[in-house]
Amino acid sequence: MALSEFDIIRRYFARGGPARTDVALGIGDDAALVRVPPGAELAVAVDTQVDGVHFPRDTDPEAVGYKALAVNLSDLAAMGAEPAWATLALTLPAADEAWLAGFARGFSGLADQYGVELVGGDTTRGPLAVTVSVYGLVPAGTALRRAGARPGDAVYVTGTPGDAAAGLRLLQSSLRSDAGLRARLVERLERPRPRVAEGLALRGVASAAIDISDGLTADLGHILEASGVGATLWVDRVPLSHAFRELLAANPDARSALGALALTGGDDYELCFTAPADRADAVSRALQPRDSGFTAVGVIDSEPGLRCVHDDGRPWQPPAHGYRHFG
Amino acid sequence: MALSEFDIIRRYFARGGPARTDVALGIGDDAALVRVPPGAELAVAVDTQVDGVHFPRDTDPEAVGYKALAVNLSDLAAMGAEPAWATLALTLPAADEAWLAGFARGFSGLADQYGVELVGGDTTRGPLAVTVSVYGLVPAGTALRRAGARPGDAVYVTGTPGDAAAGLRLLQSSLRSDAGLRARLVERLERPRPRVAEGLALRGVASAAIDISDGLTADLGHILEASGVGATLWVDRVPLSHAFRELLAANPDARSALGALALTGGDDYELCFTAPADRADAVSRALQPRDSGFTAVGVIDSEPGLRCVHDDGRPWQPPAHGYRHFG
Repeated sequence: MALSEFDIIRRYFARGGPARTDVALGIGDDAALVRVPPGAELAVAVDTQVDGVHFPRDTDPEAVGYKALAVNLSDLAAMGAEPAWATLALTLPAADEAWLAGFARGFSGLADQYGVELVGGDTTRGPLAVTVSVYGLVPAGTALRRAGARPGDAVYVTGTPGDAAAGLRLLQSSLRSDAGLRARLVERLERPRPRVAEGLALRGVASAAIDISDGLTADLGHILEASGVGATLWVDRVPLSHAFRELLAANPDARSALGALALTGGDDYELCFTAPADRADAVSRALQPRDSGFTAVGVIDSEPGLRCVHDDGRPWQPPAHGYRHFG
Repeated sequence: MALSEFDIIRRYFARGGPARTDVALGIGDDAALVRVPPGAELAVAVDTQVDGVHFPRDTDPEAVGYKALAVNLSDLAAMGAEPAWATLALTLPAADEAWLAGFARGFSGLADQYGVELVGGDTTRGPLAVTVSVYGLVPAGTALRRAGARPGDAVYVTGTPGDAAAGLRLLQSSLRSDAGLRARLVERLERPRPRVAEGLALRGVASAAIDISDGLTADLGHILEASGVGATLWVDRVPLSHAFRELLAANPDARSALGALALTGGDDYELCFTAPADRADAVSRALQPRDSGFTAVGVIDSEPGLRCVHDDGRPWQPPAHGYRHFG
């Protein structure tokens, strides 16, 4: 495939798409050349998605292309960086034209939405895997980091975590649902919406931020570790989507295991962030115009560790062997 | 492996190595933050190496780590860009500590040599593959592109192409050689030296440049295509290393097929470049202090296509079915 790699990239990715004035040289040379404006820092993120590991085999290639870029844009969102460019390293068992066309449709459609220009890539032969790097711009010193949470800060989450994990369980198990419900939750798994506008709006407001790829408790844990603080998470306040509540109602026997997904399920790519208590109004002003929604779900304190509690004060524990409930 | 990915990256890659002042935030957040100096353009290159495709299975992991970075630094060399940062996306069947330690030794050793800081990465479970992205800096407007060759320009090559391909044939066939000869040629395959200093010295001198990954004739072809010109290549002037000549002498029956590797063998990561005829002195001044050596091997002309000729004017043709001679 070596000799035709640029042909492949060119054919499927070089037509259409935004042509940014800050790209001095795009696809087709030994390297791309881009320009970072004075006063900006460049945010760089990279993520690999492997067939059968990050997405089930035979996933719609359009969904694979979409998500490969989406998870990276989500990293930029969590930094408060404005997406600018991307590179794509695609490893494929064979040059399957139909697969490539679908993949490119998913990837390029999302790139167009966010004004991202694909500036370089590599196509190699091998087991199916996609590595995307994204590049975003942020005024120097204003990026949202994981390390800024302070005792007393409120903990927020955008959207309704758990939907993507519920969608994955629907694909993998015999949970009861109707086709419409299934489609809505699988859509959240396959087409997460990177919270880029939310991240940009939170610059100067949030004290720390991360995107939820491993689950709310795990990713909040990363903020706590980086910031050297602890937190109390009010589990009953974590917002559930209408679809998620329908799934709970339809599967009362799996209620506890399913419900835990809102706290432990990954792949939602919502943002978890913290902000000083006296910036609650600023948080509202920043996020109310956005369509994701946002909810205060906890508070940072100085005692290390994460304490998950119900509203009545009882500690919450993840259900033992939760996966057995999805048979 | 998801939860431990940063542990892996941190343990093997975050100790030691250059800490650059232009890195505002390194490994461990959602994205890295780097600073590009005013007046510079950022060169971005990405390359994937797949187990069993780009390197034989059971290749020494130190060689895999070295080469994964080297081939990317070679892309920066071909742009005349100064290496600055890298990211590493590593897909592994399992977290094999000995393999990782060797890989990191090869990668980090080369990164140290070139002052490259690893600023981010992703570690995933799956078939062994390595995707490295590198970032280099170049004063705006001075990068070496493929598209600048003009009729009358001389065509040059650094070093002695063909050695890496000869090393690969030694690994894969029953060619006659002694252990020392074999080691020297396999070293050229496994540890190509990116011609970064040469690329930097050629800024303002070369009219076009590319690194030789697919073979001299193929990569010169990319320059010709991008520049809309043709060339004559004097095949007898392409310099052969002492080791390569020894291998030819030891295998007279495979002489023609072996000799062709200097023109068609990839993986050397030498530079092929062009410069106006009246800049020959500038080329000498730029490259004589470097240890690679350089040789004028052809001339650009306006007739499209590449004409490979012997010194006596006979056209050179690649031997038919060359691979059959490596039985």
